[in-house]
Amino acid sequence: MALESLRYRRGSLEVLNQRLLPGQLRYERVGGVERAWGAIRDMEVRGAPAIALLGCLSLAVELAGGAGPSEDLGALEEFVGQKLGFLLTARPTAANLGHEAERLRAFVRQRVETPGVTPQQLRESIIEYIEGLLEKDRRDNRNIGAHGASHILGRVRGDGPVTLLTHCNTGTLATAGYGTALGVVRALHQRGSLSRVFCTETRPYNQGSRLSALELRHDGVPVTLIADSAAAAAMRERGVQAVVVGADRVAANGDVANKIGTFQLAVAAQHMGIPFYVAAPSSTCDPTLASGRLIPIEERPGTELTQLGGVLLAEPEVDVWNPAFDVTPHELITGGIITEWGVFAPSELCQALGKPREL
Amino acid sequence: MALESLRYRRGSLEVLNQRLLPGQLRYERVGGVERAWGAIRDMEVRGAPAIALLGCLSLAVELAGGAGPSEDLGALEEFVGQKLGFLLTARPTAANLGHEAERLRAFVRQRVETPGVTPQQLRESIIEYIEGLLEKDRRDNRNIGAHGASHILGRVRGDGPVTLLTHCNTGTLATAGYGTALGVVRALHQRGSLSRVFCTETRPYNQGSRLSALELRHDGVPVTLIADSAAAAAMRERGVQAVVVGADRVAANGDVANKIGTFQLAVAAQHMGIPFYVAAPSSTCDPTLASGRLIPIEERPGTELTQLGGVLLAEPEVDVWNPAFDVTPHELITGGIITEWGVFAPSELCQALGKPREL
Repeated sequence: MALESLRYRRGSLEVLNQRLLPGQLRYERVGGVERAWGAIRDMEVRGAPAIALLGCLSLAVELAGGAGPSEDLGALEEFVGQKLGFLLTARPTAANLGHEAERLRAFVRQRVETPGVTPQQLRESIIEYIEGLLEKDRRDNRNIGAHGASHILGRVRGDGPVTLLTHCNTGTLATAGYGTALGVVRALHQRGSLSRVFCTETRPYNQGSRLSALELRHDGVPVTLIADSAAAAAMRERGVQAVVVGADRVAANGDVANKIGTFQLAVAAQHMGIPFYVAAPSSTCDPTLASGRLIPIEERPGTELTQLGGVLLAEPEVDVWNPAFDVTPHELITGGIITEWGVFAPSELCQALGKPREL
Repeated sequence: MALESLRYRRGSLEVLNQRLLPGQLRYERVGGVERAWGAIRDMEVRGAPAIALLGCLSLAVELAGGAGPSEDLGALEEFVGQKLGFLLTARPTAANLGHEAERLRAFVRQRVETPGVTPQQLRESIIEYIEGLLEKDRRDNRNIGAHGASHILGRVRGDGPVTLLTHCNTGTLATAGYGTALGVVRALHQRGSLSRVFCTETRPYNQGSRLSALELRHDGVPVTLIADSAAAAAMRERGVQAVVVGADRVAANGDVANKIGTFQLAVAAQHMGIPFYVAAPSSTCDPTLASGRLIPIEERPGTELTQLGGVLLAEPEVDVWNPAFDVTPHELITGGIITEWGVFAPSELCQALGKPREL
């Protein structure tokens, strides 16, 4: 059984409190929207897909438990709209949840306008729609894993199992399951084609050591933890054959915003002649931005670098530059961008996904 | 007054306990060799020059206090030899202390063989010899700073003050004073030619955040702390114009062993077209090793990555690869190697220093 961020069955939802990892593995019951709001705000769960799913599923749990009006279609529609609006206030930057809420509202509107639908049928169809999101995320991730594994095996020379390097956490703990970049790692492992994956600790929030190393070990995947600074040395001294990371946003020209340090890894991979891959669902592509230069980069508090738990790492007054992400130019993504639809050259991805779409 | 690793005047020695930094600034009295041994072993002081000086100075303090035989030259020579032998057992890899002990023994031998020397004169000359080491280290560092500052100002385009990036700690806390790479930073600052220096936190031991940021702030040098992963982004987004780091060993071909992450920084600097400098006293050059491939690389315990203070960062059982150093090939040291004698192309350094010497 994989280490899941969410455990759902109809009428019941639990969230793994990631703030307690790796010291404590505790699933906490999410009885409804209010508890989900707190879990998102307090970062018990992180990763845009996981946040969106937790929010929507908490609404499904409320609906399955009979919450909200049961006699009137319009009143039920309004109830759902209010719950979604409340969820969106938990973290202003949780873009994925915003997109899912918008789509869910449109779905409800369409059902309400369908002749002959009863309030009970509407309630049931919303629950099923939300459950479908969970399945879609898992299915997309499995497709990403399969496409990525095949592409890497075709690209990397030699017949033996491959050695990979990844950054941050893009696994079961950031999605509904399986993961994006870690989905590729899992797919190679399941084919018996993975020798080892090196995980950077990913300062300052340590998603690599706290989360990726944990979930991979839990699944029996051979994983080695390294300092972020040891990545280039690992490529040279430990036989890394490809680098696979996730993405927070992909611009129209294929430039990728991802966790700080991704750019540095891509530069090192190019220097070493190792293919560099980005794995992300197609919804990560933002064709409204011509290049990565236009992607806004969040700068986070300096305290993430000056203290850790109760330990003081630097004087609290020191000047700190702490960008959460950086932009990797498309020409450094030498392996390709792995989506649920296949692997694309960075500059071709947005075009391949069709005309600019509403996000 | 700079933040010094050691405070010495004849008959008195204090060491700054670096294990307590940045939370607590405490100098502790070192009355003799035994206390120095403990401070070295327990890493209250680190940095090869500082370790060597602390050991030798603790012996000078004992001699100034009248310890050891006072009637017989041979007995005093033996006393000094035993004390040095004991100091060498504190940390087996402290190469610098070994070299200084060897040179000091040779000096004592020569003095003993000089006709007419009294035991009191021998004692006095040993104290003066050791005090000379302290002065030489400071003088060498100031020369490194001056040569480096001039070279960088000549190399970097533009008339304004320059922005640098450095790694680990190579400052007053690692030497007798001023520092090597941080000596270059200080020299530029004193000339009014430094805009800012970015310090990487330098995982896993955090010498950048705990030590470099601290000592530079203490001296009023404009410093910004960044995660190791943010270095390439800082080069691109924050106008870094040169990178300056220290060295633990330089091979005959100019390859440099230094703190893990140095190689990655050199690759990023080359990608960005920024000159990459190594600052180190000429004694760091090891002409007995043809290339960096022959430099032994210490691998340290995984616990440095799995815990910090009392905080658990990863499961204790996770596999960890934790090399303390990496090797930067000479072709990436595009600025040059800065020594007390001037700035050299990496491949010319050992030749410029003369024929292979005993180290």
